[in-house]
Amino acid sequence: MVEYKLLNKDRYSRARLGKLQTRRGVIDTPIFMPVGTNATVKGIWQHQLEEMGAQIILGNAFHLYLKPGLEVMREFGGLHAFMNWEKPILTDSGGFQVFSIKDKKVTDEGVLFRSPIDGSKIMMTPELSMEIQMTLGSDIAMAFDECVAPGMSREYAEESVTRTTEWAKRCISYHDRSQALFGIVQGAFYKDLRKKSAAEITSMDFDGFAIGGLSVGEPFQVTKEILEYTVDLLPEDKPRYLMGIGSPDLIVTAVENGIDMFDCVLPTRIGRHGTALTWNGKINLKAAKFKYSKDPIDEECRCRVCQTYSRGYIQHLFSRDEMLGKILVSYHNIHFLLKFTERIREALATDSFKEFKEECYNRGLIKEALISES
Amino acid sequence: MVEYKLLNKDRYSRARLGKLQTRRGVIDTPIFMPVGTNATVKGIWQHQLEEMGAQIILGNAFHLYLKPGLEVMREFGGLHAFMNWEKPILTDSGGFQVFSIKDKKVTDEGVLFRSPIDGSKIMMTPELSMEIQMTLGSDIAMAFDECVAPGMSREYAEESVTRTTEWAKRCISYHDRSQALFGIVQGAFYKDLRKKSAAEITSMDFDGFAIGGLSVGEPFQVTKEILEYTVDLLPEDKPRYLMGIGSPDLIVTAVENGIDMFDCVLPTRIGRHGTALTWNGKINLKAAKFKYSKDPIDEECRCRVCQTYSRGYIQHLFSRDEMLGKILVSYHNIHFLLKFTERIREALATDSFKEFKEECYNRGLIKEALISES
Repeated sequence: MVEYKLLNKDRYSRARLGKLQTRRGVIDTPIFMPVGTNATVKGIWQHQLEEMGAQIILGNAFHLYLKPGLEVMREFGGLHAFMNWEKPILTDSGGFQVFSIKDKKVTDEGVLFRSPIDGSKIMMTPELSMEIQMTLGSDIAMAFDECVAPGMSREYAEESVTRTTEWAKRCISYHDRSQALFGIVQGAFYKDLRKKSAAEITSMDFDGFAIGGLSVGEPFQVTKEILEYTVDLLPEDKPRYLMGIGSPDLIVTAVENGIDMFDCVLPTRIGRHGTALTWNGKINLKAAKFKYSKDPIDEECRCRVCQTYSRGYIQHLFSRDEMLGKILVSYHNIHFLLKFTERIREALATDSFKEFKEECYNRGLIKEALISES
Repeated sequence: MVEYKLLNKDRYSRARLGKLQTRRGVIDTPIFMPVGTNATVKGIWQHQLEEMGAQIILGNAFHLYLKPGLEVMREFGGLHAFMNWEKPILTDSGGFQVFSIKDKKVTDEGVLFRSPIDGSKIMMTPELSMEIQMTLGSDIAMAFDECVAPGMSREYAEESVTRTTEWAKRCISYHDRSQALFGIVQGAFYKDLRKKSAAEITSMDFDGFAIGGLSVGEPFQVTKEILEYTVDLLPEDKPRYLMGIGSPDLIVTAVENGIDMFDCVLPTRIGRHGTALTWNGKINLKAAKFKYSKDPIDEECRCRVCQTYSRGYIQHLFSRDEMLGKILVSYHNIHFLLKFTERIREALATDSFKEFKEECYNRGLIKEALISES
């Protein structure tokens, strides 16, 4: 259901330029995918996502199962029609969301928890997650996995890798392949468990592979080390997706390790709090120092916000808690990450990713200058 | 600074079609003016106001004086540049806002109160209000008046009319006429006081006249009676502005009584709570009955929201308290009122305002069918 085509490889790193054919068109990789958890990228109209150049967005099986629910989704004929978005959608399986619920019972069968909305008991299983995602009709579905929180014992992580493999088998067995299906490699921060998980997951008939369980609170160096180790265990001919990352430094690290896809709520979450991403690092627009500033958020940015509004105006909107402030910074941040990955693709197309990374280092966007040779 | 041109008069009522020349272009009257209190129409981008056909918006001298303050406004060169809106702006004088503050001391000099933002003491005077509005650089400024709350004694209302007249004189004396300046007729719900106020205010050199102190909580019949009585006391050759109204029934009543301009926070305020204006009356999109509805908010509406999103989707957004729900209904409601007044202008241009009013009655948009012959 998806086909990955490699277009160019970087000379100095694992970074790669490609295209991913989905049933709703081709997406260029590496790609940043804005997150629309509840069938909306917070504060942004769907046509604005298109105008910014978003090629694919995320939906969330867990949240959309709770609200509006499968009956509504069936009535509308899926998530695309429901939210009026015609380009590709990838849905997360709910694995990550279920595991961030405190009161739950994990068994080999699935995860039992109470709905955070109405308190009703829900048993999330690999089969139910597949059923939800098939009903949502996303273009790429994710296998239902167990995402282990940092600080869990090795014993638990080991058990969890086995469970994730068993669940992956059940996902494949239940899924009708009307949409692409990606497997997720887990294994916490243990290399041998990552190796075991990767071997088991990649042996199955998935259309792509994701690395889960990273960027869950661990230090940058740990993320990087496990990422470097795990990517080599994934096949070259299928797309690779690093879940839950979206800061410029992690994006560069992901790309130079051969990652093709990534997603994060970061642009809208920090945007609602007034923090903007710029080509010279983050700035917080709530700061009083911007009160008189006629400059745009980022002088190098060509987004609608930076072409129209000043830092001073946006500072004022936040000082009055006006909705438009959150909207403008969220918009700018999504645009920034889309352009940031577009620049990465341009660099990969022109064999200048190393130079791009050096530029990022000089601008203070990333902490490490040297590319890790592959 | 503004010039009113009468284009057509209705045969059955005082309704009139016109054009108002301002220094930033011509606006068509009767006109609905969306309210951007804090230099933003809540939840809406400025280019979206343009795309909807807004010709003039409101700013508020009181709020903008508190935040961002005159220093910032001077630095930016006025409200238009600050918020990036190039079409006309009318600023309210702060009279209405000051009088909705509980702890205040009204003297002939002005109104002493504490800033709701930082608690500092502020003395708002006619001179300060003029200074603020000249600094904002709006195209139409309003005189600083005293708006009397319903239930105040006749004695107080009488005193207040005298004060409003004295303040009007001071406004004219202080104002540099770099922008148009409108006087405001007060007099609560007493016809003789309205007569006195109208005589005094219209004897002064204002560019237009507003009726203040209506739609402050009194019954519809009272608004209507005082409006009918007061309009006749205003000159025909100047624009007439009824402050603070924006529901379809009050708009029709205003227009048939010869009002040219009106403003209201209604579309965004009710929009944030899920209530949408339609050609068949109000609906609340939070209602569970809309959960499965694929219909747009209003089938007759051609706004971007109704062309794209369903009632079911919007119901979902409100059920998850998603910002986009508030945004979409606010946008639709503003668009509705702009189109509603556009239809009124079309009816006036084609001598069919009576038929338009009958249509509104049949649709349940207004309560009274017969036009009050003038």
